[in-house]
Amino acid sequence: MTSFASDYLEGAHPRILERLFNTNMEQTAGYGCDAHCENAARLIQQACNRHDADVHFLVGGTQTNATVISSVLRPHQGVVCASTGHINVHETGAIEHSGHKVLALPTDNGLLTATEVEEVFHSHYTDPNIEHTVQPAMVYLSFPSELGTLYSKQQLTAIADVCHRYHAPLFIDGARLGYGLASPACDLTLADIAHLADIFYIGGTKQGALFGEALVICNSNYKTDFRYHIKQNGALLAKGRLLGIQFETLFEDGLYMSLSKHAIDAAMQLRSVLLSEPCKSRYSMPIDGLTNQLFVEMSNYDYERLSKNFSFEIWQRNQTTCMVRICTSWATTQQAVEQLAKALSL
Amino acid sequence: MTSFASDYLEGAHPRILERLFNTNMEQTAGYGCDAHCENAARLIQQACNRHDADVHFLVGGTQTNATVISSVLRPHQGVVCASTGHINVHETGAIEHSGHKVLALPTDNGLLTATEVEEVFHSHYTDPNIEHTVQPAMVYLSFPSELGTLYSKQQLTAIADVCHRYHAPLFIDGARLGYGLASPACDLTLADIAHLADIFYIGGTKQGALFGEALVICNSNYKTDFRYHIKQNGALLAKGRLLGIQFETLFEDGLYMSLSKHAIDAAMQLRSVLLSEPCKSRYSMPIDGLTNQLFVEMSNYDYERLSKNFSFEIWQRNQTTCMVRICTSWATTQQAVEQLAKALSL
Amino acid sequence: MTSFASDYLEGAHPRILERLFNTNMEQTAGYGCDAHCENAARLIQQACNRHDADVHFLVGGTQTNATVISSVLRPHQGVVCASTGHINVHETGAIEHSGHKVLALPTDNGLLTATEVEEVFHSHYTDPNIEHTVQPAMVYLSFPSELGTLYSKQQLTAIADVCHRYHAPLFIDGARLGYGLASPACDLTLADIAHLADIFYIGGTKQGALFGEALVICNSNYKTDFRYHIKQNGALLAKGRLLGIQFETLFEDGLYMSLSKHAIDAAMQLRSVLLSEPCKSRYSMPIDGLTNQLFVEMSNYDYERLSKNFSFEIWQRNQTTCMVRICTSWATTQQAVEQLAKALSL
Amino acid sequence: MTSFASDYLEGAHPRILERLFNTNMEQTAGYGCDAHCENAARLIQQACNRHDADVHFLVGGTQTNATVISSVLRPHQGVVCASTGHINVHETGAIEHSGHKVLALPTDNGLLTATEVEEVFHSHYTDPNIEHTVQPAMVYLSFPSELGTLYSKQQLTAIADVCHRYHAPLFIDGARLGYGLASPACDLTLADIAHLADIFYIGGTKQGALFGEALVICNSNYKTDFRYHIKQNGALLAKGRLLGIQFETLFEDGLYMSLSKHAIDAAMQLRSVLLSEPCKSRYSMPIDGLTNQLFVEMSNYDYERLSKNFSFEIWQRNQTTCMVRICTSWATTQQAVEQLAKALSL
Repeated sequence: MTSFASDYLEGAHPRILERLFNTNMEQTAGYGCDAHCENAARLIQQACNRHDADVHFLVGGTQTNATVISSVLRPHQGVVCASTGHINVHETGAIEHSGHKVLALPTDNGLLTATEVEEVFHSHYTDPNIEHTVQPAMVYLSFPSELGTLYSKQQLTAIADVCHRYHAPLFIDGARLGYGLASPACDLTLADIAHLADIFYIGGTKQGALFGEALVICNSNYKTDFRYHIKQNGALLAKGRLLGIQFETLFEDGLYMSLSKHAIDAAMQLRSVLLSEPCKSRYSMPIDGLTNQLFVEMSNYDYERLSKNFSFEIWQRNQTTCMVRICTSWATTQQAVEQLAKALSL
Repeated sequence: MTSFASDYLEGAHPRILERLFNTNMEQTAGYGCDAHCENAARLIQQACNRHDADVHFLVGGTQTNATVISSVLRPHQGVVCASTGHINVHETGAIEHSGHKVLALPTDNGLLTATEVEEVFHSHYTDPNIEHTVQPAMVYLSFPSELGTLYSKQQLTAIADVCHRYHAPLFIDGARLGYGLASPACDLTLADIAHLADIFYIGGTKQGALFGEALVICNSNYKTDFRYHIKQNGALLAKGRLLGIQFETLFEDGLYMSLSKHAIDAAMQLRSVLLSEPCKSRYSMPIDGLTNQLFVEMSNYDYERLSKNFSFEIWQRNQTTCMVRICTSWATTQQAVEQLAKALSL
Repeated sequence: MTSFASDYLEGAHPRILERLFNTNMEQTAGYGCDAHCENAARLIQQACNRHDADVHFLVGGTQTNATVISSVLRPHQGVVCASTGHINVHETGAIEHSGHKVLALPTDNGLLTATEVEEVFHSHYTDPNIEHTVQPAMVYLSFPSELGTLYSKQQLTAIADVCHRYHAPLFIDGARLGYGLASPACDLTLADIAHLADIFYIGGTKQGALFGEALVICNSNYKTDFRYHIKQNGALLAKGRLLGIQFETLFEDGLYMSLSKHAIDAAMQLRSVLLSEPCKSRYSMPIDGLTNQLFVEMSNYDYERLSKNFSFEIWQRNQTTCMVRICTSWATTQQAVEQLAKALSL
Repeated sequence: MTSFASDYLEGAHPRILERLFNTNMEQTAGYGCDAHCENAARLIQQACNRHDADVHFLVGGTQTNATVISSVLRPHQGVVCASTGHINVHETGAIEHSGHKVLALPTDNGLLTATEVEEVFHSHYTDPNIEHTVQPAMVYLSFPSELGTLYSKQQLTAIADVCHRYHAPLFIDGARLGYGLASPACDLTLADIAHLADIFYIGGTKQGALFGEALVICNSNYKTDFRYHIKQNGALLAKGRLLGIQFETLFEDGLYMSLSKHAIDAAMQLRSVLLSEPCKSRYSMPIDGLTNQLFVEMSNYDYERLSKNFSFEIWQRNQTTCMVRICTSWATTQQAVEQLAKALSL
């Protein structure tokens, strides 16, 4: 059985494990105040071309989202996002738990538009009962989106412009940032992200690390006292160097982007198969994102047939068809890709 | 200038003021532990035919909603409501401030349906990632709704059935409860409400009192320690007897329902005018609720014309037309109704 | 039976009731946006000699404390207060409910000292694990304290200096502010309070109003968006004019201070009796505040004897003695004072 | 430089790293729903002799404390603990951030007594203003305490009895549980802890794992929906098997207790040296806990001298003396112990 169910099925890239092994008996200060974290932060500043940014390492995405958002917002403020946004649907209300409304905008493709975001702010600030409604004060988006779609540089710039106009920070969830940047459809670089976002993070968990998200705070307004928030949210890892070591490994010679590219290559191979004969009449991809997540509609018959040897995540299902997510990752083997390609074509 | 902008424009019914005057120098215990509150609670139990219910008096609607909902829910739980629900759009995120997601369902007419509510629960409990999503655990609805519409006995019973099936309390916001019960379209009594709801309240603020909402907890599961929650939410009025005295006055001889009926009569007179010549071609009522709120679409020209002598709340507006809310209340005079009827017809 | 149990036993000063009666059928905008609130705010600015201050009207003390504190603090910050502080012991954890730790300092007399407050800040900022501890970021004190004691101008200035040095606002709970200012032991004026505090409030509930606290925000840093916080905390009274009308009455011609003086006169009469023969050997006043609250230690025998005709609040009790609080107010009659004086002396 | 500053200086026991290496390319379900977590849970149930208990794996102590406490308490309830308790002083107010007051009792030795805890409940339930104060509803204690002291079986049983009488769960923070159980002064077993506590956890972070705390919920009242809380608190590790694998390794053949014993042996060696000539006149141990933490008072001269080759955590310091914490762990080498013993004696 080979699984394409998610991008966090395996442990970590072997070089990361090896580095953990080699540093194991070093004695270091706790809570991220060690040389590995410092070095990793410096490497990430370089990769982002933002030497002024603060870099922090947290364990997972939900805790990073909750920590950032609750550190930025005042109690009467909310965060704008797409209705499909991870914070809106897959974090058990962690944002509301910290006291804030998620102002979700309907979407078909997982993306916000600058026009929609502008409208949220505009309608708030022209509401005669303004104080009776939650003040939109931050924009959250995922790059790539939860549906594997991407913002173009122009789209993201337009959203950032709206944010700046309303003094609302733009926060980018980059749990799969590398898989977005490595997409053939992407016209943005890591430095562009770091230029446009006020705060963003570079996901490790889904991109070759055991766990860990590297948070980059670009806008100085949001840097003050941030480590208190990490601690308060239970996100300050005692042996913080474990995060430093992993991100050092990922960023010292380009491993992060080469692993990202590996996953995208695998996904693009599968996509080609799906779009060509004999597959194209049996499968469709209603959301055509060019990242490591392929959303494929197929008959339940095909799904059952494939499930004998492969596993996927079911996204939607009715009595005759289902949409599954086929997910590749840094760990996907060429052999697995070929086996699935063959099975799809049968 | 006569205002039909809301139902909380004036002070209180003269009998309430008189009673406050007559009891002014009594010395009573604070925080609702006085004979007036006890008496008012007893009168309300009688009116509801629920002698087992706990009755508490709070100052306003938002604080009542937040207090009740945060006392009932555990942190991972959310409250289902219509997208137009007061807690979703007009309380500055008070529910989220207490840590809970509002699970809002789209609506055109301000009402939930049992089918929609059932679907929320069903899809939650069949979600393979159940623990990653907020657990629906309570249903909030307003009677009448924020758009002046009403649930029939059958509709409300069906929703209550879904709630019971999923062990989720049904909480009814009755800020305008009397105006709903007095509607010619209503087939529910106060006792029916008290039978179907686990928790509900009888609004005073909009119905003849200076302020105050009488909360009725019918289901014993939600009674324990409730006064702690009132205090914690800043809703325990020091001179609680002010609430007791007002509700005594409203409930000792039917004043509450006769004031409700007064407002409905005024609204129905205006509705008749709007539906007949010469008005019917110039005004429309896309949401035709038979309570004290009339939502009337008119040309901006008519709106400007009427605004010289009357004020309304603008609900929506575009370049040529607007929808206004015309609101009657316990305090609306027959003279004001006739003046507006005449102006509408000009 | 005459009660000296608290200062919120009666309704309101007759002039307030009369004004409510006279304005009852005025139609005004809701939520504090009416001419009465504007006028009351202006009168309070004048009385405080702070024409730059923002004035808001809330219903009660607990809600005012919670609203102010949660509007000022970021999530990792706490509020310093005396262990006897109302927010620490009598608000059912309302401050913690909004997410913040109350950093309580032990006290015997209900007062903070500048030295103690300085030490809290100093020890925090020199802690090597600074981010693992709550950041002190605000100082809360009550004037008079919950034990009826007062800060001198020098003491309060010293505390304010510490606050400014650490950029932490000084917030003064003035639920009984008038009773403090009218004390013969007080060397501070309302204008001094408004000069030293960043935020404070003038209590109405215990000082002649039916209810209501007038919040004065002196420091501009804390003014932004404050009405959102009022609404979110369920503290925005629909018929806000009720608050405006009451504070207009209290502040238009000095009624507030004359009622305060009345209560203090009554307390000082009783205090004289307690300190002179034949009382001085039977009663003691371990906490000798010169405000409207007298804390009197007596035998249980005397307590039981007095309880036949008077009620007090028991503060502490053991098998032979008890300490009771004797509370006067704007409503205390000369007759009641004389009766109690006589009974004490028997 | 050899550090005795804490027990989380190194990575993990080599067998844990080896196991992570060997399982690295396994594909497993996420979020703790894998065979390693199941197996680890079963092993821990066995070790605790509580086959009915629920076992969950979280990443760190602060997040475990916050998740457990906020899952148990209703909004008006607080948690009782010693003033030295980790939740009171070293978690940046994480408990208050979730809305609850920490009811801290003064202590000299880090321990609660049953009498003190009883008094908290008793005085609450006899308070005439009961609803104005936070309801004590849970007891938190650390075993060993933050000062390295231990409860005897009798003491812990007495506290548990009070808890049961007031229907308040006893929650034991076992971040260093093994170091407590392995102490020569301990008369409790892991099974005793699991019998007396309603909820407790077995620390991995400080006891040989890279990270991780194994939470054991013994009382069924607190099991419902717990995984929602883990997720909401950002504590549900995506690659949950990393926790399962570590605890499998620690519990399949007694590694956890043998590592604990190793640390205690090292501490007892150092303690013997400190208590004998020539040390006993120069060093004192005012808090004499027999666990892996030694609190040693020494002259600043000695401290500076030792600091050339060793590091410790400074607990308190004045102009002439300081108290340092000397911490051993699973990773402390015999060589390091001997070098420090020698240096202490010089």
